[in-house]
Amino acid sequence: MTADTRRFVSQLAHNEAVSQVFLASEKQLRPNRNGNLYLQVDLSDRSGSVNTRLWNASEADYKAFENGDYVHVEGATQLFQGNMQLIASRIRKARPDEVDEADFVTLQSAEIEQMRHRLEEILRSVSSRPLARLAEGFLKDDQFMAKFCRAPAGMKNHHAYQGGLLEHVLSLMELVLVVAPRYPQLNRDKLLLGALLHDSAKVDELSYERDIAYTDEGQLLGHMVLGVTLLDEKVRQIVQQDGQPFPERLLVELKHMIVSHHGEYEYGSSKLPMTLEAIALHHLDNLDAKIASFSQLMKDCPNVDSSWTQYFNQIGRKLFKPASEE
Amino acid sequence: MTADTRRFVSQLAHNEAVSQVFLASEKQLRPNRNGNLYLQVDLSDRSGSVNTRLWNASEADYKAFENGDYVHVEGATQLFQGNMQLIASRIRKARPDEVDEADFVTLQSAEIEQMRHRLEEILRSVSSRPLARLAEGFLKDDQFMAKFCRAPAGMKNHHAYQGGLLEHVLSLMELVLVVAPRYPQLNRDKLLLGALLHDSAKVDELSYERDIAYTDEGQLLGHMVLGVTLLDEKVRQIVQQDGQPFPERLLVELKHMIVSHHGEYEYGSSKLPMTLEAIALHHLDNLDAKIASFSQLMKDCPNVDSSWTQYFNQIGRKLFKPASEE
Amino acid sequence: MTADTRRFVSQLAHNEAVSQVFLASEKQLRPNRNGNLYLQVDLSDRSGSVNTRLWNASEADYKAFENGDYVHVEGATQLFQGNMQLIASRIRKARPDEVDEADFVTLQSAEIEQMRHRLEEILRSVSSRPLARLAEGFLKDDQFMAKFCRAPAGMKNHHAYQGGLLEHVLSLMELVLVVAPRYPQLNRDKLLLGALLHDSAKVDELSYERDIAYTDEGQLLGHMVLGVTLLDEKVRQIVQQDGQPFPERLLVELKHMIVSHHGEYEYGSSKLPMTLEAIALHHLDNLDAKIASFSQLMKDCPNVDSSWTQYFNQIGRKLFKPASEE
Amino acid sequence: MTADTRRFVSQLAHNEAVSQVFLASEKQLRPNRNGNLYLQVDLSDRSGSVNTRLWNASEADYKAFENGDYVHVEGATQLFQGNMQLIASRIRKARPDEVDEADFVTLQSAEIEQMRHRLEEILRSVSSRPLARLAEGFLKDDQFMAKFCRAPAGMKNHHAYQGGLLEHVLSLMELVLVVAPRYPQLNRDKLLLGALLHDSAKVDELSYERDIAYTDEGQLLGHMVLGVTLLDEKVRQIVQQDGQPFPERLLVELKHMIVSHHGEYEYGSSKLPMTLEAIALHHLDNLDAKIASFSQLMKDCPNVDSSWTQYFNQIGRKLFKPASEE
Amino acid sequence: MTADTRRFVSQLAHNEAVSQVFLASEKQLRPNRNGNLYLQVDLSDRSGSVNTRLWNASEADYKAFENGDYVHVEGATQLFQGNMQLIASRIRKARPDEVDEADFVTLQSAEIEQMRHRLEEILRSVSSRPLARLAEGFLKDDQFMAKFCRAPAGMKNHHAYQGGLLEHVLSLMELVLVVAPRYPQLNRDKLLLGALLHDSAKVDELSYERDIAYTDEGQLLGHMVLGVTLLDEKVRQIVQQDGQPFPERLLVELKHMIVSHHGEYEYGSSKLPMTLEAIALHHLDNLDAKIASFSQLMKDCPNVDSSWTQYFNQIGRKLFKPASEE
Amino acid sequence: MTADTRRFVSQLAHNEAVSQVFLASEKQLRPNRNGNLYLQVDLSDRSGSVNTRLWNASEADYKAFENGDYVHVEGATQLFQGNMQLIASRIRKARPDEVDEADFVTLQSAEIEQMRHRLEEILRSVSSRPLARLAEGFLKDDQFMAKFCRAPAGMKNHHAYQGGLLEHVLSLMELVLVVAPRYPQLNRDKLLLGALLHDSAKVDELSYERDIAYTDEGQLLGHMVLGVTLLDEKVRQIVQQDGQPFPERLLVELKHMIVSHHGEYEYGSSKLPMTLEAIALHHLDNLDAKIASFSQLMKDCPNVDSSWTQYFNQIGRKLFKPASEE
Repeated sequence: MTADTRRFVSQLAHNEAVSQVFLASEKQLRPNRNGNLYLQVDLSDRSGSVNTRLWNASEADYKAFENGDYVHVEGATQLFQGNMQLIASRIRKARPDEVDEADFVTLQSAEIEQMRHRLEEILRSVSSRPLARLAEGFLKDDQFMAKFCRAPAGMKNHHAYQGGLLEHVLSLMELVLVVAPRYPQLNRDKLLLGALLHDSAKVDELSYERDIAYTDEGQLLGHMVLGVTLLDEKVRQIVQQDGQPFPERLLVELKHMIVSHHGEYEYGSSKLPMTLEAIALHHLDNLDAKIASFSQLMKDCPNVDSSWTQYFNQIGRKLFKPASEE
Repeated sequence: MTADTRRFVSQLAHNEAVSQVFLASEKQLRPNRNGNLYLQVDLSDRSGSVNTRLWNASEADYKAFENGDYVHVEGATQLFQGNMQLIASRIRKARPDEVDEADFVTLQSAEIEQMRHRLEEILRSVSSRPLARLAEGFLKDDQFMAKFCRAPAGMKNHHAYQGGLLEHVLSLMELVLVVAPRYPQLNRDKLLLGALLHDSAKVDELSYERDIAYTDEGQLLGHMVLGVTLLDEKVRQIVQQDGQPFPERLLVELKHMIVSHHGEYEYGSSKLPMTLEAIALHHLDNLDAKIASFSQLMKDCPNVDSSWTQYFNQIGRKLFKPASEE
Repeated sequence: MTADTRRFVSQLAHNEAVSQVFLASEKQLRPNRNGNLYLQVDLSDRSGSVNTRLWNASEADYKAFENGDYVHVEGATQLFQGNMQLIASRIRKARPDEVDEADFVTLQSAEIEQMRHRLEEILRSVSSRPLARLAEGFLKDDQFMAKFCRAPAGMKNHHAYQGGLLEHVLSLMELVLVVAPRYPQLNRDKLLLGALLHDSAKVDELSYERDIAYTDEGQLLGHMVLGVTLLDEKVRQIVQQDGQPFPERLLVELKHMIVSHHGEYEYGSSKLPMTLEAIALHHLDNLDAKIASFSQLMKDCPNVDSSWTQYFNQIGRKLFKPASEE
Repeated sequence: MTADTRRFVSQLAHNEAVSQVFLASEKQLRPNRNGNLYLQVDLSDRSGSVNTRLWNASEADYKAFENGDYVHVEGATQLFQGNMQLIASRIRKARPDEVDEADFVTLQSAEIEQMRHRLEEILRSVSSRPLARLAEGFLKDDQFMAKFCRAPAGMKNHHAYQGGLLEHVLSLMELVLVVAPRYPQLNRDKLLLGALLHDSAKVDELSYERDIAYTDEGQLLGHMVLGVTLLDEKVRQIVQQDGQPFPERLLVELKHMIVSHHGEYEYGSSKLPMTLEAIALHHLDNLDAKIASFSQLMKDCPNVDSSWTQYFNQIGRKLFKPASEE
Repeated sequence: MTADTRRFVSQLAHNEAVSQVFLASEKQLRPNRNGNLYLQVDLSDRSGSVNTRLWNASEADYKAFENGDYVHVEGATQLFQGNMQLIASRIRKARPDEVDEADFVTLQSAEIEQMRHRLEEILRSVSSRPLARLAEGFLKDDQFMAKFCRAPAGMKNHHAYQGGLLEHVLSLMELVLVVAPRYPQLNRDKLLLGALLHDSAKVDELSYERDIAYTDEGQLLGHMVLGVTLLDEKVRQIVQQDGQPFPERLLVELKHMIVSHHGEYEYGSSKLPMTLEAIALHHLDNLDAKIASFSQLMKDCPNVDSSWTQYFNQIGRKLFKPASEE
Repeated sequence: MTADTRRFVSQLAHNEAVSQVFLASEKQLRPNRNGNLYLQVDLSDRSGSVNTRLWNASEADYKAFENGDYVHVEGATQLFQGNMQLIASRIRKARPDEVDEADFVTLQSAEIEQMRHRLEEILRSVSSRPLARLAEGFLKDDQFMAKFCRAPAGMKNHHAYQGGLLEHVLSLMELVLVVAPRYPQLNRDKLLLGALLHDSAKVDELSYERDIAYTDEGQLLGHMVLGVTLLDEKVRQIVQQDGQPFPERLLVELKHMIVSHHGEYEYGSSKLPMTLEAIALHHLDNLDAKIASFSQLMKDCPNVDSSWTQYFNQIGRKLFKPASEE
C-alpha cells in the first residue's frame, strides 16, 4: 500500500472501515469483567498511533505477533471522549510484500541523505587542522555514520524518531553557523565539533532498530560518559592512521563540552560549563531542543478546538497556541 | 586630558606617577591602628577602577567631594599581591574643563547613535501591522528613547554600563534575525517586539545618571511588572492617537513574553514561558546574557598568567580561558 | 423543587430512587468491554457531586445536553467501596421552571449582599485620604463590584465557588481589623487596601459564569500582574474624576503588596515582601487560606469513620480530625 | 548611675567623653601592624552596643575582666564611615554599687511582671478541664515560671533578649484571643496551650544568665524535642498530684503542635502540621515572629537617611521603610 | 495445610486449581460495566500476594469476612500481561484449624528467637557501665521485648514485615561489631545502644497485629520524637530501681543519635548528626536499609526475563540485576 | 633537624623562639596602614600550619622563595585570640641538607609501603578471573602504582595529603572485607574492584608533587569521567597482553560504579547507583569519608576548652566532642 492510498492514523475518522498494515507495540492480553480475554495493542505508522482492541481474544492471538512486527489489521474506528479507537476483528502478522517502510518512518531516506550531505559540507568547512582531522575521522567511519544517521536524539521529548539525532545535530550546526559570527570571542570550529560530539554517543546509548529503547550501557553510563569513550577511540584511531599527535588540551576541551552540555548537575552534567564554547553549546542545544519539543507537544495535542494544550507534568505547564490569523 | 594622553586605569603599571581626573565612588573615612584616619575611595574611568588611599586624611578631605563626582588626583601606583593600588597625596574635586566625559563612558555617543540607528532599521522591518504600530510608538517617543539609549542592562553581571541596555537588546534582535528563519513555527515579528520589550522597563527600574542603582519602584516591583505597565501606557497612547484598537490577545502575548522571560520561578518569573516565542525569547536572552557576562568575567580576571579565573560564587565555578594559539 | 423537598447530593443514601434536577459537568461517552457505549457524567448541587452512569447510551444521549447545563435525572443510587454512585435510566435537559438556582450555589444572594455590605462598611472606615478615595473608586464601580461579588477565590484549594473571592477578602479584612491594632508599626489602612487589592484581579484571571476556569490572560499573566494593571486603571480613573494626583510612592507600595503577596518566588511572587504591610498581608492571607482549605479538605473527606483524611499530594500529608468530644 | 544621667549607647554622638559602666562581650587581644597589641571589646547597654578599642593593651588588660562582666570605661567616641566607635583609655571591672541593672535589660521587671500577670489571666480563661489543669501546673511551677519569664525567644532574629520568650508567647496568645473567634472550627483552648508550649523548652535550649547562648542539650536536641520531654514531665507531675489521668489523645495533639510548629521539614519540624490548631499555630507564630524581627531589623538599621535598609542575607532582601508622612 | 503441601503464592502457575487458605486485605465491592457487582481482594501468604476477583458477588459476599481475616478460597489461576490473577468461585472465612500461621509470617518464631538471643548476646558485651544498665533495662522489659520482636521496621521500603525491626536492628549491630573496630575514634558501646534505640519507637509508631499501619501518635509525632520519650521512661525506671543517677550528657548524646539518625532535615531529622557516633549510625543505618530495600525491590520485580526492574518513583530509577554467571 | 629535636607546629607555645625549616605557601606582600610593606606566609610541617608575618619586608624578601619551597625561619611565636602566630625576623630558602622530608609528610614511606602491601594482598584474594586479571594489571603498572601511592584523596575534606588516596582506598577495602560477608547478595570481588577504581583517577585529577591542586583536565572533566578513561586504557592493555577478551557487561558495571559513586546528581554523579554493588560502594565510601573528615575537623579545631567546634559552613553545623571520660 502506498502513501497515496493508505489511510494514515492521523487521517482516520469515526466509523471508518480499516484493512491495512500497522506497526505493533505494547500488546497486552487482558480479561474483561466477565473473565473473557481481549487483546490490546498500539498500532502506529509515521503519522501517529491508535489504541486498538480485539475482543474475545485467545493466547494464540496474543502470540501471533511480537511488538515491533508489522501486522495487517481489519476492523473499524470508533470515536468517544474525543479519542479515536480501533476495534479490530482480525490481526495477523503482515507479509513483507504488504509493507511499505516509507509509511513508517518520520524521515525518508532521501531527507536523511540530504541532511548527511549538508552535515559533511559544514564539517568540511572547519579550518582548524586538528579539528578538521577529527571531523574527517568520523565522516569516513561508515559504521559510525550509518548509526549516526539512523539513531533518534532521545526516547521521548525532542527528535525521538529514527534520524532524529542527525536532524538535531544538523539544526544545532546551522545555529552555530549563524550565531558564532555574532560573538568574535567564540571559536566556531570548536563549537561545530561540540555540536557533532555532544550527543554522538546516543548511537550507543539507545537501541533503535525498530523500537527505541535504552541499551544496558546507555542506562548505566549515559551518553555523556559514553561520548568521552567514543571520542577517545576515534582520536586513538586517527593518531594511529596519520602518526601525528592530537593536541592534549584541545581534546580535554572537547570532552568538557560533552560532559557539561546539560548545563546543571541536576540534569546529569558531571561538570558545569567552564569554557565559552561549552556555555554557548549548552544554551544553543537547549534552544533547539526546547523549540523542537514544545512544537511537538503542541502538534500532538488532541485539544483541537482549544488554544491550550493539556497540562504536561514534565514541563510543569500548559502550552498556548495562538490562532494563526494573528 | 584627551584619551590620547590619559593613562587609563587598565594601563597603569607599578611605581607610576599619576596626575589626572577620575570618577569617585565608595569613599570611606577609616582609622588606622594608631587611631589616625585615612581616606579610601574607588577611582575609575571607562577601562576599570583602582582602589585608592589617602593616608592621614581629615573629615575635610572626606567631605571635599561626593561619590559620583569627578576628582583630580595626584599620587603614585603600587603593586602588591598582583593588585594595583593608588597611594594618593592629594584628591580634589575636578573643574568641568578638566573632564573629558568620553574617558568615562564605555560606549561613545557615536557608537550609541549607530546602535540606535540599527535598532530603528530592524524594528521598521516588522511587517505585522499592530506590532509595527507599537514599535513606531516607542521609536517616536523621544523621552523613552533617550532613556532607553542611556540605561544599563543591569546592576552587575552583563552590560552593566550606560548604553548597555541598548547594546543587549540590539544584540538580541540580531540573534532573532538569524535564528527565527531557522524555525518556521516562530513568529519573527513577535520575537523582535519581545526583544524590545522584555527589559524595556530597566529604564525605570534603575537610575543611571552617574551611579547605577535601583529606583524605589524598581526594587519594589521589578522590571517585569514595570514593563507591563510601560507597555499598557504605550498601547493606550497609540490607540488614542490613531483611534484604532490594539488586538487584545496579541497584547496579552506580548505581556506574557515580558513576565516570563526569566524562564523559572526562582529567577522572579511570575509565569513560565507558555508560547513558542516566549520560550525562544527566554533562551536567546539567556544565551546573549551568559556569553556577555562570562566573557566579561574572563576579561576582568586579574590572574594574568593562568588559564583559570578565580572561583565566582554567583556562578558556582571557575572559568577556563584556553591559550589563544589553540 | 425547593430546598425543602430536594434530596441534596450529600443526603443521598443507598438504593434511593432519584428524580430531580442537577448541574452536569465532565460528561463522557465510553465503550464498555463489549463495545457498547455508556455515558458518564458528574452531577452536582451546592452540597457536592455524584458520579453518574447511563448504561447503553447513544451519541444522541451524549449530545442532549452540555457541561454546565441543568439536567433532570431519573435513576437510583448504589453504594460500593464506600462511594455513592447514581445509575441513571434517563437524563434530559431541564426546563427553566424546574430549576431553583438556590439549590446550586454555595453562597446565597442574601449572604453575598450581607458580605458586600460589611465590606463597604469596613472600607469606609479608612481614614487615609488617598486610600479612602481609592476604596471609594472600587466601591462605586458597579461593573467591578458585580464581578468581585461573583468570582471565586480560586480554581481549587480554598474558596473555590462563586462568591468565594468576596468571602476570602472580607475574612482577611476582619483579620486586619483585629490584628493590626496589636502592632502599632503596621498601617491598618494600607493593610485594608492590600486585602482588597491582592486577589482583586481574580475577577479577570478566572471565568466563573457556570464552570470555574482560567481565562487566557489569567493563565498567561496571573492575577498578580493583572492586579497591577487593574489598580493602574482605577487610579487613572479617579485622578481623571477629581483632578487630584495620587501619591506616587503610596501607589508603588500598594502594587508591591499585590506582586509580593505569595511570599516566595516558588509560588510566583516576582518580589519578596519588603514592607511591613506586605509581610503582614502575606502571612494573614496564608493563615486565612490555609485554615479555609484544610477545613474544606477535612469536610470533603469521605473517610467518615476515621480520624484521618486520605493523603493529599498537594499538601504532602494526611490531616487529622480529632473526635468532637475532646 | 541612673537612667536619667546615663548616656545610652544609642545617644552617643561624635567626640563625646565617656565615663560610665557597660556590659562587656566578645573581647579580643589583637596585634596591630607594628606588632603592638590592642584590646577590642563590644560594650553594650539595653539600647545597643558599640565597638571599643584600647590601644597599647597588655595581656593583663585582657585578663582584667570576663565577657559578661560589667566594666567601667573611660574614653571618647569617634565617628567614621557612619559608625560610632569608642576609643578607651581605661577599662576596669565595675564595682557592684556602680551598676544599675535596669540600664542593661530591655524589659524592666515591672513590664515582665505585668506580662506575666496578663499571661496568667489568659490561661485561667481556659475552660477545657484537662487543659486548664495543665496550664495551672505550669503557672504554679515557680522554677519554670522564673525561667520562662527570663528566657529570650531566640539567639538572634526576634525577641532575642531576656523576657523575650514571655513577650513573644503573650503576643501570640493575644493573637489567638482575637483570631480564634473568627474561625469556629478552631479550638481556642488548644491554641492557647499550643502558644504556651510551642517554645516553652527555650528555657532549657538556651542559657541566658548574662550572655545568650545554646546549652549542649539545646544544640543537640532543639527546643521542639525538649518541649515534648518538658510536657511529659509536667503531665506526669499533675497526674501524680491529683490522681486523675490526662487524656491520651489530647496529649498527643499538644505534642504534635510542638514538633510541627516550624511548619516545614527544612526548618527542623520533624512533622508537618496535620491538625487545624497546629496549622493555625504555625501561621500565627510566623506572623508574630516575622513582624517582630523585620521591625527590629528596620529599627536597628544605621542607614538613617535612606528608606532602605542594607541587604540582609538571612532573609534574602532589603527592607523598605516608607516615610512617616504617608 | 502445612508448608509441604501448600502452593505458595510465589509458586502459582497458569491455569492451576486452588483450594486453600490466604490472608485477605484491600477487599472492595465494585460494579462491572453491566451494573453487576464483583468482589476484588488481595490474597497473600508469606511468599507474596495475588489479586483475586469473585465475579457476580453480593454485599453478603463482601461482608462475609474482614481485611486481616484468614479466608479459604476456591478458584483457578489465570495469567495475562505477565501478571498472575486468581478467579475465585468461592471465598469464605477460614476455620482456625485450617490455618497454619507459619505459612503467613516471613520470619518464623524460631528465627525470631534466634535473633533475639543474638541481640541479647551482643548487648551484654557492652562494657560501659551506664550503657550496660540501660541495655539490661530494655532486655528485661518483657512487654517491650515482645513488641520489639514483633514490630516491622516500616510500612514499606525495607523490613516491612513482622520481626523486621528486630532483623534490621540486629543487622545494624552486627555491622557495628565489624566496623567500629576499624575506627578507634568511634565508641562501640554508644553505637550499639544507638542501633538499639534509633528505631525502637517503631513499636509505638506502628500497629502490626495483622495489618501494618501507623498509630495516631506514630503519624502525629514520629518514631524519632516517640523514641526520646521511650528512652526517658526507661531511664527513669532504671534510676528508680537501682537508685543511681544516669549520666546527663550521655543521655543527651543517646537522644541526639535518635533525633538525628535520618541525617537530613528533609527526611524529618530535627537535628543534623553532630557527634561521630551519630554520623556513623546514620550512614550504617542507611547502608543496611538501602541494601535491604533495593534487594527487596529486585526480588519482587515481575520482569523475570529482563535484567532491569521497572522504574520506581520513590527512588527515581530502575535497578539492574546482572545475570548470575558473571 | 630530626623529628626528635624539631618543634612541630602543633607543639608551639606562646613566646617561643623559633629557628628551623618549614614548608612555605600562600605568600603575599601587603602594605600596612603606613604604607610600609610586610610579608605574610603560611608555614607548615606535617603537624599543621601557622600564619607568619615578616614586618617591614621588601619585594626582594617576597621574591626570595616560592610557594612550595622549604624555608628556614627565625622568629618568635605570639598568641592572641587563641590563635598562634609567628613573627619572623628572617626567612630564607633552606639548603637541601637542612631539610628532613619526613618532617613534612603525614604518612611515612614505611607506612605507605605497608599499606601498599596490604592493598596487594587484598586484591590478590579476588577469585573472579577477569577481575583478578584487571587488579593484577593495575598492581603491575609501576607508573600507576607510584602515582596511586602518592596522590591525596582530595583538595580538602578527607585524606587531603600525600598517600591519602591509598589510605582511603585501603580503608574502604577493609570495610568491604568485613561488610560484604554480611550481605550474601553482594559480590565481594566487584566491590573490591569498585573500591580500587572509584577514586583511581585522582592520580590525574590532582597534582600533588608539593602543593595539592587540580590539574586542568581534573577541573574540566573530574575524576569520575577520567576514571572511565583510565579503566578503558587498562582493559585495552591487558587484553592486548593476554589476548583474551574482557567481559563487556562486567566492564560496564565497573564503569557504572565509578560514575555513580557520589550517589546523587547534585554531587556530580551523572548516574544514580543502579546495581547493588554500586549502592553499597556509595554508602561505604560515604561512611569512610565522613568519619575521616569529621574526625579531622574535630582534631583541627582550635577551641581547646570547649566540647564544640566552630560552625562549619561546608557541613552546615558545629560538631560536638564529648569529654573522654564518658
